[in-house]
Amino acid sequence: MGAKLQVGVLGFGTVGSGVIHILEEHQEKISQVTGYDIAVKKVLVRDVEKARRYETNGFTLTTEPQDVLEDPEIAVIVEVMGSITTAREYILQALRAGKHVVTANKDLIALHGDELVAVAQENKCDLFYEASVAGGIPILRTIVNSLAADKIQKVMGIVNGTTNFMLTKMTEEKKTYEEALEEAQALGFAEADPTSDVDGIDAARKMVIMTRLAFGMNVQLDDVETNGIRTINKEDIEVAYQLGYKIKLVGTAEETNGSVNVNVGPVLLPRSHPLSGVNYENNAVFVTGAAVGETMFYGPGAGELPTATSVVSDLITVAKNSKLGTNGNAFNSYRHETKHTSKEQIFSKHYLRLTMVDKTGTFLKLTQIFAEAGVGFDKILQEPVDDFTASVVIVTHATSKAQLEQATKRVEEEPEMQIFTNYLVVEG
Amino acid sequence: MGAKLQVGVLGFGTVGSGVIHILEEHQEKISQVTGYDIAVKKVLVRDVEKARRYETNGFTLTTEPQDVLEDPEIAVIVEVMGSITTAREYILQALRAGKHVVTANKDLIALHGDELVAVAQENKCDLFYEASVAGGIPILRTIVNSLAADKIQKVMGIVNGTTNFMLTKMTEEKKTYEEALEEAQALGFAEADPTSDVDGIDAARKMVIMTRLAFGMNVQLDDVETNGIRTINKEDIEVAYQLGYKIKLVGTAEETNGSVNVNVGPVLLPRSHPLSGVNYENNAVFVTGAAVGETMFYGPGAGELPTATSVVSDLITVAKNSKLGTNGNAFNSYRHETKHTSKEQIFSKHYLRLTMVDKTGTFLKLTQIFAEAGVGFDKILQEPVDDFTASVVIVTHATSKAQLEQATKRVEEEPEMQIFTNYLVVEG
Repeated sequence: MGAKLQVGVLGFGTVGSGVIHILEEHQEKISQVTGYDIAVKKVLVRDVEKARRYETNGFTLTTEPQDVLEDPEIAVIVEVMGSITTAREYILQALRAGKHVVTANKDLIALHGDELVAVAQENKCDLFYEASVAGGIPILRTIVNSLAADKIQKVMGIVNGTTNFMLTKMTEEKKTYEEALEEAQALGFAEADPTSDVDGIDAARKMVIMTRLAFGMNVQLDDVETNGIRTINKEDIEVAYQLGYKIKLVGTAEETNGSVNVNVGPVLLPRSHPLSGVNYENNAVFVTGAAVGETMFYGPGAGELPTATSVVSDLITVAKNSKLGTNGNAFNSYRHETKHTSKEQIFSKHYLRLTMVDKTGTFLKLTQIFAEAGVGFDKILQEPVDDFTASVVIVTHATSKAQLEQATKRVEEEPEMQIFTNYLVVEG
Repeated sequence: MGAKLQVGVLGFGTVGSGVIHILEEHQEKISQVTGYDIAVKKVLVRDVEKARRYETNGFTLTTEPQDVLEDPEIAVIVEVMGSITTAREYILQALRAGKHVVTANKDLIALHGDELVAVAQENKCDLFYEASVAGGIPILRTIVNSLAADKIQKVMGIVNGTTNFMLTKMTEEKKTYEEALEEAQALGFAEADPTSDVDGIDAARKMVIMTRLAFGMNVQLDDVETNGIRTINKEDIEVAYQLGYKIKLVGTAEETNGSVNVNVGPVLLPRSHPLSGVNYENNAVFVTGAAVGETMFYGPGAGELPTATSVVSDLITVAKNSKLGTNGNAFNSYRHETKHTSKEQIFSKHYLRLTMVDKTGTFLKLTQIFAEAGVGFDKILQEPVDDFTASVVIVTHATSKAQLEQATKRVEEEPEMQIFTNYLVVEG
């Protein structure tokens, strides 16, 4: 057993107790690999009495943040309390006191990552956040280290387990959105207020973090066009399936001629695409590199122990750096000027579902609108809804976002037509 | 642009030229990330005239190994020449001269990894070999760094692209073994002599390397029970499919109570298993950890550029270490006493296909033999082959290897029965 590396943990929820469990359970291996006995000294909790129901061997519980943040023996702070404002304050204080920080807080890193990285650098401290994206999948370290040799072209991620669980239930078991949400809530995969998950916000935050690392560009949350899954219905899932696709909530960051486009929304994935097989609460990140080609990293996106393994692997890196005297080097040193791809340069196939008045000439008008915008059709399905209305499904050829917007705007002006669905289509 | 880190490359085949290409193409990013201009100074080739057809900007070709190995300006040797004896000699010489080494040579690492790691340590040199397993998939670094926090329980790998390509062709396009092999050879996926691939030897070498890193145990190639794909035929592929499985060549390393069992052979994978979707020449490694659960790392298992990205990511690590003054730390410091699981402790379901004389009493005898060995049946299919012979397919319940061997040995003693197929079955 080597020297002690003492840790203060902020928060004793699922991830916090997972971290404590893993540090105890795998102590021997961790100590062999790092040369340190990594031990939790203090845990910040809201209510000491309530927290006592967990095992609290060898460490102290406190409700006073300064007990942890000002303890000179504590070398590393693990922030797993969530929230933004308070967590930011505590982390800044810790870094300024020369403590290394490991956090699982994607909201904080997506919003204030820049500032925290700068303060960590100034104070020669490590700041790691592997657990903030895709739980147990070591995707950030893979992008930063293993793919450093390559030019990453595209990152596609199923990075929200709640919505992927719901969509799997809706696809495989033909449940409605409401039924799927209820089941996700009953199993603890979804919050009472599911907004952040179902509206794609959680996924967008994770895409911001991955985009910064993969492309070296400092994109912000506002730069991400974000759509959620509330609008996805049985019809689209079934039609997509007939056409050979599955609908998943996917975040995409793609580079084109030195600029990047990031979006989150429902997409149609070919059923043979590796991401199509990612079901239930699992996550996966599909990375395309100029040299390596297509790779995918798959695993549990959430949960006490998976997320905690990522936190502990960050702790192990802090310990290794401490041993070698190499703390304080930026996790990611790749920087590229931040540029956003213009609408004219963002190309994709699109899936559209609309209804129109079923009378002579309407379909002609529809095709004229698309032809004028320069949008070609790859597939069309038309079916009567009732005597007066027809449902039309269109899969376009690859077209620019600008062209597609021109067409859909014109369609919306027609009182006889109404667009219900507009999703991106990933090509096989 | 920072200081120069000069590289000598041994071998100018596909991987060698891929490495040179990537170092040129991604020079700016690599230099930003490492602080070094990593440049190839000399390349060892068999025939200088022949090698000239490649671009040879900024470096010298030589047929004389000592030109490279004794050049004091060369700090890193990249060994991509293949072979065992000569490569071992050159690498040992390089390490003893204080040069860091990056190799893609799985045969060498599987056979002499121990010795090379020891010599690298003595000379405070880096020795990395990410490209030796699963081409472009950064699986070794993931096991060593990202999964260090976890206790790995099982590693299953589709790590031979040639056989996976052949099996995909046999499954999806109903080709015969011979047709699939011919196509693989025509596409350059299989050698003229395919022994090392189709007999599972290549996969076994990669499993040895992964087992050492994942379990810290020093297993040898002889410890790996290795079967290839020559015996796989249409009948088994079809019956397996009907039962809900796909047949793949899978290497498995599993830990049970502190001991490990490693094997390579055809296995039946549930069609819903993530490894089932890994097709053609792609590779994937499925890792089960006590805490993280199930993760999978997928990508191209071979090819010029994918393999070269792994070599260059190793070079980047050497460069980062040089910057920080931290060269010479063992890639993997996890060690565990090497123990092999006994036959009585290796449990699995099995798929057996046999023929037997179709007369009253034979089937009873068969079931008695299995009952006596304590092997239960999960599924049985019996079909007549002709008037005198029946084909029987059995999927057993999970049973020990010892029990199964007892049963199959007894069956083989019966002149009325003959076993054709005996594959492991992975449970969903």
